Amino acid sequence: MLRSIGRQWRCSVAFQCPCLCPARQQLPLAPSSEGRAISTSVGQQLKAQQQQQLQEQQQQQQQMHKIDEEVSRLLALKAKLGGDATPANQKFTLKTPKGTRDYAPQQMTLRQGVLDKIVQVFKRHGGEAIDTPVFELKEVLTGKYGEDSKLIYDLKDQGGEILSMRYDLTVPLARYLAMNKISSIKRYHIAKVYRRDNPAMTRGRYREFYQCDFDIAGTYDPMLADAECVKIVAEVLDTLDIGDYVIKLNHRQLLDGMFEACGVPANNFRAICSAVDKLDKSPWADVRKEMVDEKGLDGATADKIGEYVRLSGGAELVEQLLADEKLKAVPNAVKGLEGMQLLLKYCSLFGLEERISFDLSLARGLDYYTGVIYEGVLKAEPSAPASPVKELHNGDQALEQSGTVGSVAGGGRYDNLVGMFDPRGKAVPCVGVSIGVERIFSVLEAKFAASKVKLRTNDVEVYVASAHKGLHEQRLRVLNQLWNAGIKAEHSYKLNPKLLVQLQHCEEHQIPLAIVLGDAELAQGIVKLREVTTRQESNVNLADLPNEIRRRLQK
Amino acid sequence: MLRSIGRQWRCSVAFQCPCLCPARQQLPLAPSSEGRAISTSVGQQLKAQQQQQLQEQQQQQQQMHKIDEEVSRLLALKAKLGGDATPANQKFTLKTPKGTRDYAPQQMTLRQGVLDKIVQVFKRHGGEAIDTPVFELKEVLTGKYGEDSKLIYDLKDQGGEILSMRYDLTVPLARYLAMNKISSIKRYHIAKVYRRDNPAMTRGRYREFYQCDFDIAGTYDPMLADAECVKIVAEVLDTLDIGDYVIKLNHRQLLDGMFEACGVPANNFRAICSAVDKLDKSPWADVRKEMVDEKGLDGATADKIGEYVRLSGGAELVEQLLADEKLKAVPNAVKGLEGMQLLLKYCSLFGLEERISFDLSLARGLDYYTGVIYEGVLKAEPSAPASPVKELHNGDQALEQSGTVGSVAGGGRYDNLVGMFDPRGKAVPCVGVSIGVERIFSVLEAKFAASKVKLRTNDVEVYVASAHKGLHEQRLRVLNQLWNAGIKAEHSYKLNPKLLVQLQHCEEHQIPLAIVLGDAELAQGIVKLREVTTRQESNVNLADLPNEIRRRLQK
Repeated sequence: MLRSIGRQWRCSVAFQCPCLCPARQQLPLAPSSEGRAISTSVGQQLKAQQQQQLQEQQQQQQQMHKIDEEVSRLLALKAKLGGDATPANQKFTLKTPKGTRDYAPQQMTLRQGVLDKIVQVFKRHGGEAIDTPVFELKEVLTGKYGEDSKLIYDLKDQGGEILSMRYDLTVPLARYLAMNKISSIKRYHIAKVYRRDNPAMTRGRYREFYQCDFDIAGTYDPMLADAECVKIVAEVLDTLDIGDYVIKLNHRQLLDGMFEACGVPANNFRAICSAVDKLDKSPWADVRKEMVDEKGLDGATADKIGEYVRLSGGAELVEQLLADEKLKAVPNAVKGLEGMQLLLKYCSLFGLEERISFDLSLARGLDYYTGVIYEGVLKAEPSAPASPVKELHNGDQALEQSGTVGSVAGGGRYDNLVGMFDPRGKAVPCVGVSIGVERIFSVLEAKFAASKVKLRTNDVEVYVASAHKGLHEQRLRVLNQLWNAGIKAEHSYKLNPKLLVQLQHCEEHQIPLAIVLGDAELAQGIVKLREVTTRQESNVNLADLPNEIRRRLQK
Repeated sequence: MLRSIGRQWRCSVAFQCPCLCPARQQLPLAPSSEGRAISTSVGQQLKAQQQQQLQEQQQQQQQMHKIDEEVSRLLALKAKLGGDATPANQKFTLKTPKGTRDYAPQQMTLRQGVLDKIVQVFKRHGGEAIDTPVFELKEVLTGKYGEDSKLIYDLKDQGGEILSMRYDLTVPLARYLAMNKISSIKRYHIAKVYRRDNPAMTRGRYREFYQCDFDIAGTYDPMLADAECVKIVAEVLDTLDIGDYVIKLNHRQLLDGMFEACGVPANNFRAICSAVDKLDKSPWADVRKEMVDEKGLDGATADKIGEYVRLSGGAELVEQLLADEKLKAVPNAVKGLEGMQLLLKYCSLFGLEERISFDLSLARGLDYYTGVIYEGVLKAEPSAPASPVKELHNGDQALEQSGTVGSVAGGGRYDNLVGMFDPRGKAVPCVGVSIGVERIFSVLEAKFAASKVKLRTNDVEVYVASAHKGLHEQRLRVLNQLWNAGIKAEHSYKLNPKLLVQLQHCEEHQIPLAIVLGDAELAQGIVKLREVTTRQESNVNLADLPNEIRRRLQK
């Protein structure tokens, strides 16, 4: 039943009844003005205007409520028609959702190794862990990601709150800080995030993927925290040992200043910045085209930007740009360059000179950065054929084209994000880095697949075997003794498995030790302890077993 | 535009136009029969019937398509009216979604400790880790959870696949095994699952919560794997040291046999089982009412069930029931009891006699169990006041009422779930256990809050301090030396912090060592190393620093 049936309510929008009934007609667009008071004095006019606005708002709300009701009714109807029910035995393609994957034990072993190493680095820098829910109120994510917002996964409205899956770990951190009124923290967060992007799974680009974030929040002196984040990127990439890399550095303030110097209107900075960001995947010609054709820049301005974004270098480039006539005149550019100068100095104190490159083509896609930005990029393997297409100055752009993974870490400073959540706009300056581990996994997976090394996927230390039939209860007793002593042990879940099958299991799974039970030995209170690789066996007293096993394992 | 506008399509359902237009009328319910071929021979009749069915199906699909289109149109309309857009600066309540929480560093430390201990147990039993995506195709989850299916979170249809958040880790495991044709595995999986339940957060019941699952899949001899799962529950609860507990055991086949013996119709077994499952939260009177009023059981049958479900005990109870006249006559009951007999024997070999209770009131909510079921339940603290309401035989039912957490682990055998995914119905028998860690966290959090012990939330070993102004570059050099040596170190991100503030930071954060830099010492190549708790200081050569720090930390 329609609840508002008694009200003077008129549909003010074009409504098309799905059944082709006479309702498929234009209804009047303006709300009915019947009953509206007409008066002459200004005060009364104002009041009347306010009343009218109120009325219009109420009508709009009623319309939306009505639409909600109708949508629910239609969906219920669809469900009745059988739209949502899957018959019990219906066959469908067994798969994981598009852009997602399972992790088998081998891959988990690899992944856990990578995550453990990253956590070690984060803890070395004093990071504390936090965790947030996998979804947020949709409005928490709204307006934070610029052009990428369309990639956010929304949850279905099932009554109650409107939710979306987290798109990164940065916005949830900002929400967490504002909500709990935390003004300083050094936290890490390792968790999955979700983006409805076009997956490229062989290169480690998924719709569900891990991010490993380290962020430093607080009001501090310039560049000290920023330089430490760059150091963390270097330590992570060093410890993971996945090949040569470069950390590109740039500064959003410098980019804005450079855009200003080239003549880009201020309200077009973010859009042009987002175009520059594509330089790591597209040649300059395409990016220029986007600037001119899609974003309305005139060609001469684009060409000026093109001159700058092909520059990269070190401290000497900062000097050169500080002397640049056009940039000198723009305060934002000068501030950005001075920031870069300090950052490069601190990075050199951290021994990073050989690892970093001040690179004006680095822009980063997300809207929320306000200062330093950086990106860790794997260099092409020396053995890999160099790509002939080398737009701009450096070979890294060729990486994506040559099928390697490219960017594996990125981050920067975002001083205004927390303030967006604070009711009084109180800002908490932040700088952080995110490690793109899926790309790192895919590099390591490819390496392991090539090396044909089989990783151990469990940690079993001892296998408890029966030499003949009828020993399963004895096995359970021995296993219980070992488990209670903290020893990792397993056996066959068959009552009477063949000895050969049991010993093969040990060799296949690289289990170092096996215990072989037999009635003759058990009668004397002893068991055979076998070293799986050497196949050497010796008798051990049952009571001594845990200690003897520990001794063997320590060898 | 309606795409199917040219077709002879008639709305066959009652459609109410939201704008109160003339469309609010009953339209004919039967599809139009115009154009249908009428024939006399049986073959032709059959063909005509098939055609009619096809036509009806097509019409139904068209209707559903039409509804989909209309729903999209209405939602787009609503969005235009402003229903979904959040203005940039709109204030909204800063919160996490209903039933979810953030984990602050203190809570993360506690949580990581619990998870590490659980993983240790899982690895002790030879578990391998796997991971699956947080969402699945909706049809993977459909028809697996019985009455609980209404609690599944769906994702919004944004074009592409229809997805739902995982409700547990068991159905994803079954999908994984079927999809990869794996017929045996011993795996653990620690990950968050999602249920749109009524949260009771103080008791650790959330909508987003961790599950720690261990499952053994494969065709094995009876009860060997099942008993190991019970052993794992005991080891986990022992190692977490959260108080006295009991592991209740029962068998789905025995329950079904018992229902049969009491006269429940076979098609009502699962519904009655689901009512019995509520005995841990509701008194028998309420459960009986549900059986009779909602599930149509006659009172006498319910009363017979009531006699059985108040029984609990050990091996002697199995003997007693094997001699029970009514149960003896039902093969399912006898098989279930024989299974229990074997399970109890193996559990006793694992030293679990004091920990387990064969309990006929245990039913478990989920549909997919086919054999042994079990549940680990925390007993009320001896100091806590006993609840006066003691329905049935045991005090555990009073736990929920007295505000403690109750069930913290559960599981059982599910032999048919994997077969539901296999195109040829090939079954992979499975048995497993799930640890409900959120409830365990909430017990531990309450304990820690009461004890007022402050957990360390980072692992920093050394703090690098300045004794006076102008030393920040020296700090960075020393930090770099320490980090490169693998030592966990931090400093202030202020250029010139006060010494007192720096030393207070060390004491507050329980950092064991501090290095104090001063120009006088640095000129001689030495620094002051301070033990924070004793406040003792000694001079150390800069070159020796990492080694000296390691020596101090080992003490």
